Amino acid sequence: MKIAIASDHAAFAMKGEIAQWLLEIGHEVADLGPDSDARVDYPDYGYKLGAAIADGSATRGIAICGSGIGISIAVNRHPAARCALVSEPYSATLAREHNDANVLALGARLTGIDMAKVCILSFLAAEFAGDRHVGRVEKLSNPPIFANKA
Amino acid sequence: MKIAIASDHAAFAMKGEIAQWLLEIGHEVADLGPDSDARVDYPDYGYKLGAAIADGSATRGIAICGSGIGISIAVNRHPAARCALVSEPYSATLAREHNDANVLALGARLTGIDMAKVCILSFLAAEFAGDRHVGRVEKLSNPPIFANKA
Repeated sequence: MKIAIASDHAAFAMKGEIAQWLLEIGHEVADLGPDSDARVDYPDYGYKLGAAIADGSATRGIAICGSGIGISIAVNRHPAARCALVSEPYSATLAREHNDANVLALGARLTGIDMAKVCILSFLAAEFAGDRHVGRVEKLSNPPIFANKA
Repeated sequence: MKIAIASDHAAFAMKGEIAQWLLEIGHEVADLGPDSDARVDYPDYGYKLGAAIADGSATRGIAICGSGIGISIAVNRHPAARCALVSEPYSATLAREHNDANVLALGARLTGIDMAKVCILSFLAAEFAGDRHVGRVEKLSNPPIFANKA
């Protein structure tokens, strides 16, 4: 599975640790930056991740900032991205099963590295449940705000 | 402060309880539905809440579904909305201080009513910190995906 990962400066160290671990457990990883812990703006990296999901260059994404909040908002601006901010693995599983989430957001200053890894394992292992959830996910892909802009 | 609240069927009971409590503690509340616990699609109510923030009819929003994930994705489709999914009050405070979040998302099946209320109190009490966060929030209001659609 091709996984893209992006962060801000606050989560730069966690991003590196998780990217290395994902490689070690056999995934293909695209690190979308940043390349250092110099101050950056989380929306820039959230938008890069949303675009990578939209163009198919990644099938899953991991987005990390200090709290996970800012970058999760940025990723979800893209109608192709469904980004779930989580701090424990059950939400990561639900995000896949009910929302067909393709991006997981984590807060590097709030969630420890071991819990982050358990969330990611749950996210990568769970499958979309389909059924009654399909129409809802289709609505997430076609937000009315875009109809006004098309 | 005018607060709009929306949910899906899974969070209908919590929505009612929180709306009543917000009235009791002195807020103006707009209940955007649903009006029963019959099955609905969370994106429809998330989009209503995003529109209420965008048109200024509400200055803050509360969005609740089973996990909080689906409705938070829907709300964040609107570039005027900045929706933070939380399960504890520190994240709710950070969402205001760093991200100028105007909508709080909660998971009715994951977060109990007392914790939900504490999260809401922190969200309503905290102020945006401005400073280095201003430019980042402006970027959240101007996502590049809209530039392609304008």
